[in-house]
Amino acid sequence: MPSTLALSLPAKGAPFTPTTIQRRPLRENDVRIDIRFCGVCHTDLHFGHDDWGGTLFPLVPGHEITGVVSEVGEAVTEFEVGDRVGVGCMVNSCGECAPCASGEEQYCTEGFVKTYSAVDHDGTVTAGGYSQSIVVVDRFVLRIPDELELAGAAPLLCAGVTVYSPLRHWHAGPGMKVGVLGMGGLGHLGVKIAAAMGAEVTLLGRSAEKKNDALSFGAARFVNTRESAELAAFAGHFDLIVNTVPARLDQDAYLGLLGLGGTLVNVGAPGDPVASYNVFSLLGARRSIAGSSIGGIGETQDMLDFCAKHQITSEIEVISADRVPEAWENLSGARYRYVIDIATLGTP
Amino acid sequence: MPSTLALSLPAKGAPFTPTTIQRRPLRENDVRIDIRFCGVCHTDLHFGHDDWGGTLFPLVPGHEITGVVSEVGEAVTEFEVGDRVGVGCMVNSCGECAPCASGEEQYCTEGFVKTYSAVDHDGTVTAGGYSQSIVVVDRFVLRIPDELELAGAAPLLCAGVTVYSPLRHWHAGPGMKVGVLGMGGLGHLGVKIAAAMGAEVTLLGRSAEKKNDALSFGAARFVNTRESAELAAFAGHFDLIVNTVPARLDQDAYLGLLGLGGTLVNVGAPGDPVASYNVFSLLGARRSIAGSSIGGIGETQDMLDFCAKHQITSEIEVISADRVPEAWENLSGARYRYVIDIATLGTP
Repeated sequence: MPSTLALSLPAKGAPFTPTTIQRRPLRENDVRIDIRFCGVCHTDLHFGHDDWGGTLFPLVPGHEITGVVSEVGEAVTEFEVGDRVGVGCMVNSCGECAPCASGEEQYCTEGFVKTYSAVDHDGTVTAGGYSQSIVVVDRFVLRIPDELELAGAAPLLCAGVTVYSPLRHWHAGPGMKVGVLGMGGLGHLGVKIAAAMGAEVTLLGRSAEKKNDALSFGAARFVNTRESAELAAFAGHFDLIVNTVPARLDQDAYLGLLGLGGTLVNVGAPGDPVASYNVFSLLGARRSIAGSSIGGIGETQDMLDFCAKHQITSEIEVISADRVPEAWENLSGARYRYVIDIATLGTP
Repeated sequence: MPSTLALSLPAKGAPFTPTTIQRRPLRENDVRIDIRFCGVCHTDLHFGHDDWGGTLFPLVPGHEITGVVSEVGEAVTEFEVGDRVGVGCMVNSCGECAPCASGEEQYCTEGFVKTYSAVDHDGTVTAGGYSQSIVVVDRFVLRIPDELELAGAAPLLCAGVTVYSPLRHWHAGPGMKVGVLGMGGLGHLGVKIAAAMGAEVTLLGRSAEKKNDALSFGAARFVNTRESAELAAFAGHFDLIVNTVPARLDQDAYLGLLGLGGTLVNVGAPGDPVASYNVFSLLGARRSIAGSSIGGIGETQDMLDFCAKHQITSEIEVISADRVPEAWENLSGARYRYVIDIATLGTP
């Protein structure tokens, strides 16, 4: 079996170890990808720390993958060697349930196969993008438009589509007032994408030093969530708030910022996922609390094409493989996403 | 000032006392109504017990009012003496905000004026339907269709529209799977109305002895929420669950019954309004938790006309005024709504 270099966590609590892993021989619909860049997502840490239980170790994280096709199976017609491609959070799904049939593989009723720490349909355990190559069935491979750099495009595969999908679903566009809560990897792309869709975007954040960045990304304003008077001025203002903060929040405070029929949509996956709210916060203006998980494969391609058209990539700090442990220690310090230069993993 | 007999709570914790209250002299847009029936709503008890604070005593509860017009102001054109009419939870609103302008007075940004325990625009304190007559501005008076009995129609003014509005908003109809959680005053009307709209209705309840009633009201089935195996069989089944239970619930258990994009809408106003949920219950299938509050005046009229067309009234137990304290003690024992025969209040 073809082997590849990877950065692996051998067990819970153990340090990252460069190692060699096996990738499967190509099947007729498979695409082999030389990985060039992989984003560091907060979810990688949750799995690495086994925050939700069930992590399969040894773990090779990484689901914000961009690279170049190096080989294709004989039945592959959509991709050729040399194509610039990406892989996100999913590498397989049942393909037959109603969500799969309608292009919402992320809501596959069998559960989609995650890019890492999952058992694929053939019984093998998936390993992610902190590695030099990956083999993925063609229908889970995305095309990276020429306009997008591979490094800056990598975070679009998870963070980008995670904010794009709810913005599309709740019809962000001209005349709509969108709040983006939190400005890390997800939030800064939320601001860029919502603004490109034509919405009036407000960044709701705790770090005043990010204000100028928010404005440069397309926000109409920055509101400091630590200042209750600032927040109070926006009571009832928003149609949609996209909550990217992966921590407990005062849900009622943010529900109060929504107007009639407004929605607070959670997209972050917090380590402690239990939240509470007051029913009257919903009743008073027919408000909703919702959740949205990444996006379908077709929608992810739409997002990439949209980002190409609007010249949107992630703000990134490219790091070498040996700096991954340090990046994990200080993830919220990224401006705004760490992306691993996979060439630095070494020579296969 | 014209006086009328009423059943009043003089102070928090004090017993009901028959008393005489004043109603305002008719203004040009006012309608005076001889009240015939008034439903007993759970909200009456919350106000009577001051569960949410701020109750204005002495309190005359009651916002499920039907009766006959006895006098009209000189500018009233829509109503005549002798007309069969109703009054619900609202007797005034600003009339100018966006929700008011769009016929959603229940979401008036100034707050609508409640039928009791509220300060009206003229500074007087409102008093509700546990009384022999009421004066209401014409735009908050509903017309009771001839097909509906005044006694059985009374609970439609609050309970009926409270379930009708979210069913309409979330498009209950043929092909849609609707769960109604709890079968008291609201729930039994939820079953009747959702079934009449053409939805497949499931009653989710704790009392197996209500099963036959649920089926007779139009439910396709009864699922016992105390039986986890019964519940588990409906995982992912519903498009919409209308939660009428005014108590703490395991939100995640019911969110798990929703399919992709499903909504759990809270319509009951619990004494303890804080609820908690797990974010993953939402993320996994783009689910929502929502809240809905009564309905607009135009929508309430639509509901009454819909109920007339489908021969829907509340199941009621008519009680005399002296039995109101007893009814309050045992509200959940009603099959399915206590309605006060206002003639029994005495002779004015």
